[in-house]
Amino acid sequence: MKFERLAVIGCGLMGGSFALALKQAGLVTHVAGFSASESTRQKALDLGVIDAACGSAAQAVDGADLVLLAVPVGATEEALRSIAPHLANNALLMDVGSTKSDVVAAARAALGERLPCFVPAHPIAGKEKAGVEHAEAALYQACITILTPLPENTLSQISKAQQIWEAVGSHVHTMSAQQHDTTFAAVSHLPHLLAFAYMQGLAAQHDGAQHVSFAGPGFRDFSRIAASDPAIWRDILLSNRAEVLTQVAHFKQALSAFESALHDKDTAALNRMVTLASDLRSRWHPRSKRAAP
Amino acid sequence: MKFERLAVIGCGLMGGSFALALKQAGLVTHVAGFSASESTRQKALDLGVIDAACGSAAQAVDGADLVLLAVPVGATEEALRSIAPHLANNALLMDVGSTKSDVVAAARAALGERLPCFVPAHPIAGKEKAGVEHAEAALYQACITILTPLPENTLSQISKAQQIWEAVGSHVHTMSAQQHDTTFAAVSHLPHLLAFAYMQGLAAQHDGAQHVSFAGPGFRDFSRIAASDPAIWRDILLSNRAEVLTQVAHFKQALSAFESALHDKDTAALNRMVTLASDLRSRWHPRSKRAAP
Repeated sequence: MKFERLAVIGCGLMGGSFALALKQAGLVTHVAGFSASESTRQKALDLGVIDAACGSAAQAVDGADLVLLAVPVGATEEALRSIAPHLANNALLMDVGSTKSDVVAAARAALGERLPCFVPAHPIAGKEKAGVEHAEAALYQACITILTPLPENTLSQISKAQQIWEAVGSHVHTMSAQQHDTTFAAVSHLPHLLAFAYMQGLAAQHDGAQHVSFAGPGFRDFSRIAASDPAIWRDILLSNRAEVLTQVAHFKQALSAFESALHDKDTAALNRMVTLASDLRSRWHPRSKRAAP
Repeated sequence: MKFERLAVIGCGLMGGSFALALKQAGLVTHVAGFSASESTRQKALDLGVIDAACGSAAQAVDGADLVLLAVPVGATEEALRSIAPHLANNALLMDVGSTKSDVVAAARAALGERLPCFVPAHPIAGKEKAGVEHAEAALYQACITILTPLPENTLSQISKAQQIWEAVGSHVHTMSAQQHDTTFAAVSHLPHLLAFAYMQGLAAQHDGAQHVSFAGPGFRDFSRIAASDPAIWRDILLSNRAEVLTQVAHFKQALSAFESALHDKDTAALNRMVTLASDLRSRWHPRSKRAAP
């Protein structure tokens, strides 16, 4: 498996890392990149992440046999519309979006007869630092990548997609877009929302900045994801809003139970709830490490 | 500065690490340890954390010129009552409790004329793994330790306390017990409560375990503190409940604003709030690293 021309639409952390990883794996000859910002395109070129900086998404996609869309999910439909007429019939098109139902709907609306080219993908990787300057070939090593194939995809396309993600070190799982969105609302989108709300709640306090200056390692890890890229996360939360709001409701119910126990000085109830939470978290191990050889 | 006999009441992660750190710094000749559990005492002895395992707190404290109380905060008053009659007049007594107003009230109730011996301390260190088997001499390296001295303390006692924590690598700050409890409700107790409630909210869902199996690095860091020792944290939350409930109220207000923005698909509001949270978290750096030489 080798691709002549990879087009990366959105040369940020995710797109840039994909380009570097495919180069390192020897899977691609030439990488054409497009980003809306000219300075980002130039930076990606200067860093050797892409081989050619294109003036439009259409130009990047022309002649590409592999296309990766790596833009904030809110920009998906517009980006797909702009590349659809230029997409080769046999090209493989993937995205890296953190939500899937919305992305699939955008693809159905935008891609027309090129819909079968598109195998939706979500690599569970990232850092709180965005931008092509943080891109690295190892970003997808030992991470999970979820594929949510369309009924229109051919088995050969799906298998090609799987092989690519495995070639960059990722463990591939397949599920429906709906199941993906429910799962990641629970284990990713809600934690981000809670971390954002936590920081917002601190910022609203007169002494918030003073408090934060004494924070230790618990705060550091708990709030790390609050430093994530705002545009990316605004889009993810909006894109998966129904599932996210369902998860918020589950969380608020649990929080109320803790509040009541504190109000009532109910040591037994508090003990039970903290123990259950601690046990569940202690038993958790990342799937990617479990699955690793 | 050198102590003849350190008594550690509660030979767990915190107490055990303190003993190891003082030995490594050459500050102590002999360490006597007491834990309610005989097997814990024996383990601490076998691991070389303590030099003598005592059958009671009173016995451990007899003849000690330095005493560290390292039990769950809910057990503070009873422990102080049991050692008060055996405490030497010139001994320095410290604790490691994560709350301070409650601990000071317990000391006032229990210590009688030995109250001036007690310099309340809170080293901002720990791991999610409790127990003497995880104790290490380096635990307090580069952490912050808060002292909340009593009006009854002598300057010489306070200075001795400060030197001890500095000798084990800690950066010492002094504040009132009330200020301590407000600050740590905001930057430690609330994050723990939210992480517990988050895990509890997952556990209550039919597919919770399945969801969690797909979780990645964001979940890992966000929920790490939910694996903390249940007895320790039940006590901390109860001990500082008024401040914790105030912080929960701040948080709920922020969470409501996020919920409304999602309900209303208010992209601008969501963008503003996520950006504020992300900026605040991005600007944060741990004080201990800033303060390090």
